[in-house]
Amino acid sequence: MVKSTGRHRVVIIGAGFGGIEAANSLAGVNVDITIIDRRNHHLFQPLLYQVAGSSLSTSEIAWPIRYIFRNRPEVRTLMGEVQGIEVGSRLVVLDDGEKLHYDTLVIATGATHAYFGHDEWERFAPGLKTLGDATNIRERILAAFEEAERTKDPILRKALQTFVIIGGGPTGVELSGTIAELAKDTLSRDFRLIDPRESRVVLIEAGPRLLSVFPEKLSSYTRQALEQLGVEVVLGTPVTSCSEDGVVYDGKQLPAKTIIWAAGVQASPAARWLNVESDRAGRVLVDSNLTVTGHPEIFVIGDTAAVTMEDGKLVPGIAPAAKQQGKYVAKTIDNRLKGKDIKEPFKYHHQGNLATIGRSRAVVDMGKFQLQGVLAWWFWKLIHIYFLIGVQSRLNVALSWLWNHSVGYRGSRLITNVRKEDISKSIPKN
Amino acid sequence: MVKSTGRHRVVIIGAGFGGIEAANSLAGVNVDITIIDRRNHHLFQPLLYQVAGSSLSTSEIAWPIRYIFRNRPEVRTLMGEVQGIEVGSRLVVLDDGEKLHYDTLVIATGATHAYFGHDEWERFAPGLKTLGDATNIRERILAAFEEAERTKDPILRKALQTFVIIGGGPTGVELSGTIAELAKDTLSRDFRLIDPRESRVVLIEAGPRLLSVFPEKLSSYTRQALEQLGVEVVLGTPVTSCSEDGVVYDGKQLPAKTIIWAAGVQASPAARWLNVESDRAGRVLVDSNLTVTGHPEIFVIGDTAAVTMEDGKLVPGIAPAAKQQGKYVAKTIDNRLKGKDIKEPFKYHHQGNLATIGRSRAVVDMGKFQLQGVLAWWFWKLIHIYFLIGVQSRLNVALSWLWNHSVGYRGSRLITNVRKEDISKSIPKN
Repeated sequence: MVKSTGRHRVVIIGAGFGGIEAANSLAGVNVDITIIDRRNHHLFQPLLYQVAGSSLSTSEIAWPIRYIFRNRPEVRTLMGEVQGIEVGSRLVVLDDGEKLHYDTLVIATGATHAYFGHDEWERFAPGLKTLGDATNIRERILAAFEEAERTKDPILRKALQTFVIIGGGPTGVELSGTIAELAKDTLSRDFRLIDPRESRVVLIEAGPRLLSVFPEKLSSYTRQALEQLGVEVVLGTPVTSCSEDGVVYDGKQLPAKTIIWAAGVQASPAARWLNVESDRAGRVLVDSNLTVTGHPEIFVIGDTAAVTMEDGKLVPGIAPAAKQQGKYVAKTIDNRLKGKDIKEPFKYHHQGNLATIGRSRAVVDMGKFQLQGVLAWWFWKLIHIYFLIGVQSRLNVALSWLWNHSVGYRGSRLITNVRKEDISKSIPKN
Repeated sequence: MVKSTGRHRVVIIGAGFGGIEAANSLAGVNVDITIIDRRNHHLFQPLLYQVAGSSLSTSEIAWPIRYIFRNRPEVRTLMGEVQGIEVGSRLVVLDDGEKLHYDTLVIATGATHAYFGHDEWERFAPGLKTLGDATNIRERILAAFEEAERTKDPILRKALQTFVIIGGGPTGVELSGTIAELAKDTLSRDFRLIDPRESRVVLIEAGPRLLSVFPEKLSSYTRQALEQLGVEVVLGTPVTSCSEDGVVYDGKQLPAKTIIWAAGVQASPAARWLNVESDRAGRVLVDSNLTVTGHPEIFVIGDTAAVTMEDGKLVPGIAPAAKQQGKYVAKTIDNRLKGKDIKEPFKYHHQGNLATIGRSRAVVDMGKFQLQGVLAWWFWKLIHIYFLIGVQSRLNVALSWLWNHSVGYRGSRLITNVRKEDISKSIPKN
């Protein structure tokens, strides 16, 4: 057991951007911190699509949580799954029955894929949230090309060379761009019987335009740029069915053996743990100071929280928002311990939206300042390298990108965990 | 179908050191080549233990086979599993029933773990041959520390912090050294309830000394150096049982939740495919020109072949031997196509044996030239970086090592594919 120090105990559930920032900002504050996560690492999610696209390896965008806090003896890391929260007695209940006492609780458990009532689609259209998801999608894509090279059935071959991405937000745009380049450039000389350049990459969005949170001008630039990379963009058309045969939209069946889901997210079950109100996406409705009504000791932040801004809009579910909330929570805890209960509500400062299109273009929207094309892409690269943890990761990612951009090599094109026979099974067959 | 060129068809089964070298050395020879492998990548096996030890990531020591031959249009890569060989009609039978015709066949399928009649031990004591094995072992080791940090049972905690490596060859020596350093150095500040430095790393060898192919002087140096790293070395003692509780040796039960098998290998089933004689380790007994008696068109090389040298000893199962054999096969095929059937038998040139002990020592045996300690370690590093494929891999590995050696960081300490609940299941419990 940890020796009781008698100090204020902060329990943080979730080591994403919000949870890590809260713990970082509590440095020097007289508290004991326990961080609980189901996984042993913090993940730089904005680059996860590059692992799925074989450009980066898993270790370039993830760091052990313990490593991040190795020099903070008051921070304890616990790899485990939360089963529930006993709000009255201030206890977090873990998978093995252990109960952890908290004085302040920070819930930063993020979100997962939402299939809008079609959970059976997940098998055919996996989403991209974890390192395991990314290596799974990477292996599916690579295995589809391997199968296409082997099959003698031209119809099956076509379905194996058709990649459907559902959802035209940043993840969908980034995934479809990277898969198109993988097929049409990286792999172009690698096969003998098939021509990877003949692969179809189809991006399907239910709404009227891509990147709906960006200005319309950047949305149409994104569409153009994707089409130049060879992506077929379908707008205003919801997918009505996903199966092992492909997708159905607009009454048409599109045979495809690889489908990726980037269409919707659902908050983690924090609202159920707390037995409090949530919005349609499962997000906990928090007060302006990010706490649950009637429980000033419980903060909910990041993708798990629905935070309404002064203009009535919700704070967006992006990394900078989660980090600002983590910082706010730490400041509030510090103030309370000093006896100052400042009533200042959380204020979100929107810094901008970024999305990249393939390996040489991007769109940047920072309100008055908007960028598109190559310059935006450089801006995007610098921002992302800057926010990686540690000099080694920055150098490694810079090196991987340098190689990817100069000689077109993608170092992580590995099917590691499955043998041939497993792959055949993992790709649904006709 | 590949268009028939009418050229001599070489089919190579296995893209290890032997198979890749054969295909490389056939460059410029007027043949069509098909390389069949169960996996999509060539693996630099000598560094695999560093993936298991979290020092390197998978993409640093593996390259897509297709990528290696992207500029050789006459080389076709086929990811698939061989089911058998129809020697009479010169056909390789694949898992999906496809049959591939060959004029010359090169079998370079390597070896796998051998449990000496105790296949049931594999579940508790996995071996290290593939990238999947390495990430599995890495995740078991890391998960054991996570479990140890959580459990309240001191006996279970001790078993979770006990790592047993069975087999004192190079793999066993390298694994035990890297695990000892992981526990006693890399992780030393990362936990709050357990002290990773109290972990036990036990290396058990049935024979009288470690690294039995090295001179006795280097064996005893290796033992000393490992003991300085905190490894307990047990010699002359076979393990008589492996179970979820640990191992039994010398009549004693050693409770341990992580056991790694580095004790024996068994050749791939090539002898069964060919219906020919094999030795006890399953290796095909080949003639002095590496072909199967009565079948000059079938070569067997690398760990799959038992090649007897003039002094009556067997060619060792190491990468340089496989590469020399691959080169010899290519030369023989070239000669035959030119109408010269040279009777020169394969001659193995032994360049030496290397093994590394932790991150700053090694032993090198090149006959008259022997080295131990720090200088041997530099020699080992240079050799290994030199033999990696591609400038990017060399730079990446050099960078990873630099970080590992200077600040003690191991970038690949990730549990990627399992969630907490799966880990609990994967670690056998009392």
